[in-house]
Amino acid sequence: MSFNTFGRMFRVTTWGESHGPALGATVDGCPPGVPIDEGMIQHWLDRRKPGQNKYTTQRREPDEVKILSGVFEGQTTGTPVQLMIENTDQRSKDYGDIAEKFRPGHADITYWQKYGIRDYRGGGRSSARETAARVAAGGLAREAIKALVPGVEITGYMTRMGAHEIDRERFDWDQIDQNPFWVPDAQAAETWAEYLDGLRKSGSSVGAVIEVVAKGIPAGLGAPVYGKLDTDLAAAMMSINAVKGVEIGEGMSAAMLTGELNADEIFMGNDGKPVYSSNHAGGILGGISTGQDLVVRFAVKPTSSILQTRQTITKSGEATEIITKGRHDPCVGIRAVPVGEAMMACVILDHLLMHRGQVGENRGQIG
Amino acid sequence: MSFNTFGRMFRVTTWGESHGPALGATVDGCPPGVPIDEGMIQHWLDRRKPGQNKYTTQRREPDEVKILSGVFEGQTTGTPVQLMIENTDQRSKDYGDIAEKFRPGHADITYWQKYGIRDYRGGGRSSARETAARVAAGGLAREAIKALVPGVEITGYMTRMGAHEIDRERFDWDQIDQNPFWVPDAQAAETWAEYLDGLRKSGSSVGAVIEVVAKGIPAGLGAPVYGKLDTDLAAAMMSINAVKGVEIGEGMSAAMLTGELNADEIFMGNDGKPVYSSNHAGGILGGISTGQDLVVRFAVKPTSSILQTRQTITKSGEATEIITKGRHDPCVGIRAVPVGEAMMACVILDHLLMHRGQVGENRGQIG
Amino acid sequence: MSFNTFGRMFRVTTWGESHGPALGATVDGCPPGVPIDEGMIQHWLDRRKPGQNKYTTQRREPDEVKILSGVFEGQTTGTPVQLMIENTDQRSKDYGDIAEKFRPGHADITYWQKYGIRDYRGGGRSSARETAARVAAGGLAREAIKALVPGVEITGYMTRMGAHEIDRERFDWDQIDQNPFWVPDAQAAETWAEYLDGLRKSGSSVGAVIEVVAKGIPAGLGAPVYGKLDTDLAAAMMSINAVKGVEIGEGMSAAMLTGELNADEIFMGNDGKPVYSSNHAGGILGGISTGQDLVVRFAVKPTSSILQTRQTITKSGEATEIITKGRHDPCVGIRAVPVGEAMMACVILDHLLMHRGQVGENRGQIG
Amino acid sequence: MSFNTFGRMFRVTTWGESHGPALGATVDGCPPGVPIDEGMIQHWLDRRKPGQNKYTTQRREPDEVKILSGVFEGQTTGTPVQLMIENTDQRSKDYGDIAEKFRPGHADITYWQKYGIRDYRGGGRSSARETAARVAAGGLAREAIKALVPGVEITGYMTRMGAHEIDRERFDWDQIDQNPFWVPDAQAAETWAEYLDGLRKSGSSVGAVIEVVAKGIPAGLGAPVYGKLDTDLAAAMMSINAVKGVEIGEGMSAAMLTGELNADEIFMGNDGKPVYSSNHAGGILGGISTGQDLVVRFAVKPTSSILQTRQTITKSGEATEIITKGRHDPCVGIRAVPVGEAMMACVILDHLLMHRGQVGENRGQIG
Repeated sequence: MSFNTFGRMFRVTTWGESHGPALGATVDGCPPGVPIDEGMIQHWLDRRKPGQNKYTTQRREPDEVKILSGVFEGQTTGTPVQLMIENTDQRSKDYGDIAEKFRPGHADITYWQKYGIRDYRGGGRSSARETAARVAAGGLAREAIKALVPGVEITGYMTRMGAHEIDRERFDWDQIDQNPFWVPDAQAAETWAEYLDGLRKSGSSVGAVIEVVAKGIPAGLGAPVYGKLDTDLAAAMMSINAVKGVEIGEGMSAAMLTGELNADEIFMGNDGKPVYSSNHAGGILGGISTGQDLVVRFAVKPTSSILQTRQTITKSGEATEIITKGRHDPCVGIRAVPVGEAMMACVILDHLLMHRGQVGENRGQIG
Repeated sequence: MSFNTFGRMFRVTTWGESHGPALGATVDGCPPGVPIDEGMIQHWLDRRKPGQNKYTTQRREPDEVKILSGVFEGQTTGTPVQLMIENTDQRSKDYGDIAEKFRPGHADITYWQKYGIRDYRGGGRSSARETAARVAAGGLAREAIKALVPGVEITGYMTRMGAHEIDRERFDWDQIDQNPFWVPDAQAAETWAEYLDGLRKSGSSVGAVIEVVAKGIPAGLGAPVYGKLDTDLAAAMMSINAVKGVEIGEGMSAAMLTGELNADEIFMGNDGKPVYSSNHAGGILGGISTGQDLVVRFAVKPTSSILQTRQTITKSGEATEIITKGRHDPCVGIRAVPVGEAMMACVILDHLLMHRGQVGENRGQIG
Repeated sequence: MSFNTFGRMFRVTTWGESHGPALGATVDGCPPGVPIDEGMIQHWLDRRKPGQNKYTTQRREPDEVKILSGVFEGQTTGTPVQLMIENTDQRSKDYGDIAEKFRPGHADITYWQKYGIRDYRGGGRSSARETAARVAAGGLAREAIKALVPGVEITGYMTRMGAHEIDRERFDWDQIDQNPFWVPDAQAAETWAEYLDGLRKSGSSVGAVIEVVAKGIPAGLGAPVYGKLDTDLAAAMMSINAVKGVEIGEGMSAAMLTGELNADEIFMGNDGKPVYSSNHAGGILGGISTGQDLVVRFAVKPTSSILQTRQTITKSGEATEIITKGRHDPCVGIRAVPVGEAMMACVILDHLLMHRGQVGENRGQIG
Repeated sequence: MSFNTFGRMFRVTTWGESHGPALGATVDGCPPGVPIDEGMIQHWLDRRKPGQNKYTTQRREPDEVKILSGVFEGQTTGTPVQLMIENTDQRSKDYGDIAEKFRPGHADITYWQKYGIRDYRGGGRSSARETAARVAAGGLAREAIKALVPGVEITGYMTRMGAHEIDRERFDWDQIDQNPFWVPDAQAAETWAEYLDGLRKSGSSVGAVIEVVAKGIPAGLGAPVYGKLDTDLAAAMMSINAVKGVEIGEGMSAAMLTGELNADEIFMGNDGKPVYSSNHAGGILGGISTGQDLVVRFAVKPTSSILQTRQTITKSGEATEIITKGRHDPCVGIRAVPVGEAMMACVILDHLLMHRGQVGENRGQIG
């Protein structure tokens, strides 16, 4: 069941609302002996933190994580790790208007229809603030992965913002951390900044595509038929607020290819491991990792809270208009980059543990 | 854990390999009192059955389902329903070559790397034959939905085959069942037939996009944050063999829209229920159904088994070539249409039961 | 998987250690609209609270619960409820000795052998303090049950303390709350007080049997074959610290009966519901509730921390002796009474929700 | 959810009714590479098989198991193993009477009240025939354990039949297989035979206590707080038909002991592993195995189907009498012995896999 839980062995349950006293992640199943402290998790939270530049919400949240359990003398003990982030800048008065009106594109109306009660302040449970808890859990997952399989690298970046897509020929890993959009191209960063400035000033917003790549993943992770690695990645990414599409490797474009163009040919590498002519598969065949880079992409819809008048209804069913003031991201996809990385980390760790559980060490050698 | 289980309350565990004696679905959690017999399930299996036209594998399988448990005097009893399909046309001799060689684009190599043992006959567990069990379970799910919420309709169709996409202006629901591609356009059906004939004769294959729409879904299904309806749909579709991308509503294109174009405005309908100006959301907001049509799309990669020479390696690590003879679909996406419908049915039923469990009847009224 | 999670639809994940900053319960799946506030939960915590009389540990913990999420304007919203209890009286210095030595009868040695690291302060995760989180969750479960099925009453009491067993002829429900042992017999309360005083002064401890009865439970809760109501109750009670045996109805004594003595005969009651000649079954047949009282019993072993010299070993494998000073309960069974009630409440709520999910309202009428 | 599924990584879903065409177990999560064939599983089924002597039901079922999936060339492949047993001797005509009347002590009435429909033939899903599927799964679990941890031995035996309890002084392991009661005492076997003959002739029945011991279990299996080894064992045993009580180690009697009598003192063994002065704990401390023998006991109530007139009601609510003719065990506890062993095997394997998943190899060394 576990509506608010993600994962099978490394299980993350997030809790909390945008304007409650705190939110967090209850993490069960983490291996013992993983070196961890609050600073190591804070590092990742700081990347997602709002208010860092003019392209993200101006809500000022320090997003300081506290480890309340499961860690002793700097290491995980194997018992549940409680990661709590207190809300400090809640400004509930900003949100009085939406108690009665449903914002188009938001979960206001569906939460109401489902539960008959909703914490409307800042979107309550459906707020993107929930993703802070995911990033915290992802920070822990990264350290656990490091302890199990050295050399794994998980990197997210934007490949599209609205009308603008990156030029793969200009892809530069080193640029990703150098601009507010995590775009792997210095030139694009400039163009995008101008573009988003325009949208922001006009009170509009825009969608984005984020790609997350994991390098150094061993072959053999994942499991048929419903525990496939790509199945779990698709669920992980689709569960992020505002995501409307998920792709593995070639993704939707695979539909346009012929068999001979799509299937990656296999060769023997010099290190005795298989190598592939290409990676249309995104590192996954039959739901199980090949050892190539894992490549996942997801689309984030434009922020629904915009400064333009929209038609909607009230709780009592009357037609009305709404302009969503308050503090919002013109492109919520920006802050989805660290969230996508975090979900990738959680899924990989979960599958590392499950594989070790069922199979032990990889068994099938080639050659 | 449950690698081979899908769902939370309506739980489907599939089992079986392509060339074993049988395969099937163990279905737990079905409501009692649902009228069902083998014919009602057979109806859906017949739609997926191979060998029905020249565009699908020539393997001759009657795909006859037997209900071994959980049904008494024509109704479900609330105990597990075992749906078994015996394999009859296995022709193992066809597959001798692939015992040693890994077919590019197939799960051969990853199963080997994961488990160190694999049933290579016809792809074993990773064969598309597994989807017959899903269709059987989906047939049961459809009847259970009918008993709970009359009027739900679930329809899948192809919107793209390789280079060809449908023209939405010519969309005709009545055409879907009238051609081998489940394409909602008689003219496209002809063009596609010619196109696929060409590919088939050249020993090639091609990918496809399938869209599945569910009408008549009540508002309020789904649950934050990891039990979202779209999360479960994404997992369900991505778990189907050869799927590489999943979209809800606007899907990947949502990234290209601005907020004012994307968010569906809300009005009050004459029947006292909300109506929307559009359905970019695909019927889901914040992971919960709005009452609009659920719209899911997924991309199926081209069949990897093609009659062209491909480079690969053997189990002992030697370079070699492979041509996959045998009986294969030039566009495996065709038979994915009933599978996508079945997965949609299973997810909807599961969420109907979970909603009823946690919330009872819908509680939030508007107006 | 979910090592620290209990339940299927009403899911309780507890977290925290005896001497960390806090502990708590993350509760997922609670129905929306349940009236709740901190006082209503505190009521039950106060019953379990240590230091209330000379028979329980002298650790002074206010055990004040804070609701951090999932409640809005006095009602549950259907999203996760975080119940946090801060630790205030930790006195870590008391526990220095046990960092190196394993206390006989405690989890010290097995946690070490499993994880290679343990928070030894006060028993860490294996401390009975964890049960405070269960009681908090149970308090919420009670309110949710009340909203679903009015009239359910869950009452626990002691039926044995060491050598002393209650005399069923003298059973008096009104006495249960009138003495520190929750024993339904004023006379026994006096005898037991004297008996336990003696044990306490000699630095010894003693075991107990607790019986928990639930009245007003509708027929039809529970599910074959592994989701039986008695299976879940057995797991719930056995998961409480120090419990070594669980019985339903006649329990272990059922082995001594003949069929004609054991099987409860069925009659038709005046209210059109079945009545039974007796309740050897403890209210459960075939894993499903009959509508009679649910009767569960469990045995709690004597506190292992005693003021007597015991042989043990150190982490480095050397033989040594240990006397466990510190603050301990001479009969930990006393405080297990509210814990047993809480677990009963959680199991009943979980099954109410699951039954409603799969079946809706009870379907099988008699007569 | 998974009402009919048991286990977390090694997951067993049983299906089927007493008088349907077949029943079986769908086993997911089994490690790959375990040598197995039908004969190895049949060996255990033959021990449970009815009709072997005059003390068990005279129904003639060969209980022949067929492996339908998950095994290739004599080894498990890591995919689901379907174990099917066809019903052959169903004699439905014997059961016509119970279509309308509820048998006291049986699940007839509760299934009806829950589901509003029931397969009354032979008890349907609640028949003890379901346990054949458990024994088949347990046979597979035993082989998988063998592959992971050589030297584990799981042995069940009866310690009580009605009024007769074994004398521990006369305990003889070699006798267990030498008599129809699996009692570890040749003399008791004779007395019990006479006793049960008397009961059988008078149309009565009697309860039993079964003890299952597992030797050679490594320390460190199990997990706090709800995934305890004893929690899972309690659930496993309580889920067996007719079980009313479960004990670990000292069990219910622990309530009568003082702390100094109960807590097992710890010493260092010559092999560098801890040894204990006694095993009151039954091999489990804090939910985690100590490396001592695991000792579990459970009580089975007397068969409710007896040849004596009992008061009951009909579906339409009328008072009536019933005598349950047909083929029944005078002491159903006899056939529960192999079932208890099978459940023990499943739980141990599950915990071996979970431990390996979360922790890898045991980490905490002593000395």
